[in-house]
Amino acid sequence: MVIVLGIDPGLANTGYGVVVSDGPRMVALDGGVIETAARVAIERRLATIATRIRELLGEHDCDAMALEQLYFGHNVHSAFAVGQARGVTMLAAGERGIPCYSYTPQQVKSSVCGHGRAGKDQVARMVQSLLALPRMSANDHATDALAVAVCHLNASPLSGAIADAVGRA
Amino acid sequence: MVIVLGIDPGLANTGYGVVVSDGPRMVALDGGVIETAARVAIERRLATIATRIRELLGEHDCDAMALEQLYFGHNVHSAFAVGQARGVTMLAAGERGIPCYSYTPQQVKSSVCGHGRAGKDQVARMVQSLLALPRMSANDHATDALAVAVCHLNASPLSGAIADAVGRA
Repeated sequence: MVIVLGIDPGLANTGYGVVVSDGPRMVALDGGVIETAARVAIERRLATIATRIRELLGEHDCDAMALEQLYFGHNVHSAFAVGQARGVTMLAAGERGIPCYSYTPQQVKSSVCGHGRAGKDQVARMVQSLLALPRMSANDHATDALAVAVCHLNASPLSGAIADAVGRA
Repeated sequence: MVIVLGIDPGLANTGYGVVVSDGPRMVALDGGVIETAARVAIERRLATIATRIRELLGEHDCDAMALEQLYFGHNVHSAFAVGQARGVTMLAAGERGIPCYSYTPQQVKSSVCGHGRAGKDQVARMVQSLLALPRMSANDHATDALAVAVCHLNASPLSGAIADAVGRA
């Protein structure tokens, strides 16, 4: 049994999804969004994110964290803001000795839908189907987080072992 | 008496400098660099940075953190990496209720040297002189961290009060 915390990082909205895999079956244990308000000082917003991530890692006794690796084009400002949120999320894992793995949106879409150009709706439907959710998640960030957790669990044990051996990105 | 932890954030090298101001006099209490190796997993590198920053905040009972706000041009990759290191540094402050303040390199140079186009050597000499250091710091990151701490302490109490009232950036 492997339990993965999937993360779609962001300063205003960090999506999370906890997925357990027991052989071929995958089940969602939790999912949602950590929201922080722009009027609050950044250091407090980061503390809110870190506190909730630590709770999730503890509650579900997670084995790994899988994060979406976003592409920002030339948007340096966004990259910087998301980097800050991503940093505290990975820190929460690092402090518990939980390894972190990153996947590009293309890798996530390929893993979940079979090709890297799938649309948001298609990803949401596949996540619902693969995890046997009663309905589609109403929140894109939570859906993306569940999707990256599924992507990590779909990655073959061999590729995981190779990544561990050569040092993870 | 006000004690400020100045930070020049980075994943491989985070410069730090602790400066105390007691009226017009400023004294450096500590300064150095937190180094992390590229071969180590990012989450472990971030944990190393956070642990040392927490130690510094505790050892010196700091009142504020001042961070250099870098400009990356179009280098999204650097912005993302530095953002992660900056995030865990600010988190360590946020968890202790210590407010964070950001200054651009131009603001730091203006405050320390009197104009925003000063070179690295000029900043290093002024930091040495203002803090009555026996010699110039051998490390650019530590010098930059001391300089941003000086910049924060030079900022007028009025501008600090205004920033607090309208919410800090």
